[in-house]
Amino acid sequence: MDNMGEDDIRVRFGRAVRKRRQELGLSQEELADRASIHRTYVGDVERGERNIALQNIEKLAKALDVPISTLFKDYGAENDK
Amino acid sequence: MDNMGEDDIRVRFGRAVRKRRQELGLSQEELADRASIHRTYVGDVERGERNIALQNIEKLAKALDVPISTLFKDYGAENDK
Repeated sequence: MDNMGEDDIRVRFGRAVRKRRQELGLSQEELADRASIHRTYVGDVERGERNIALQNIEKLAKALDVPISTLFKDYGAENDK
Repeated sequence: MDNMGEDDIRVRFGRAVRKRRQELGLSQEELADRASIHRTYVGDVERGERNIALQNIEKLAKALDVPISTLFKDYGAENDK
């Protein structure tokens, strides 16, 4: 039930965030600052350990300078067709 | 801070869910059953009263038969360019 494998939306979302962050050449700390989110929380999200909710998803997407849909679609956070 | 206006991601997401649900001709109860989510929770989400997180977002998107990105992009849940 609490599956943390490849298929877990939290893991896929975390990878998408990391991929986009690295593309921008930002550290986790820089991203956290831009998003006004705690740095350890960003680390948790990237490791797929957080079931992050709408308001923080939006903050992260803005800080990553992409629409939320892009983060899901183009960065691989969704695999559900 | 706890703004519930037009700009609130929770409100925009709730409207997107409702729009897609109505498009499919589903009742809130039918959607809740398909998503294995409590019916009152679906109502709360549609009214923008829930900061819904990844795992339930994914359940709802699957039950609505759309990719998560589509719910955000084509159903108006994102307005951040």
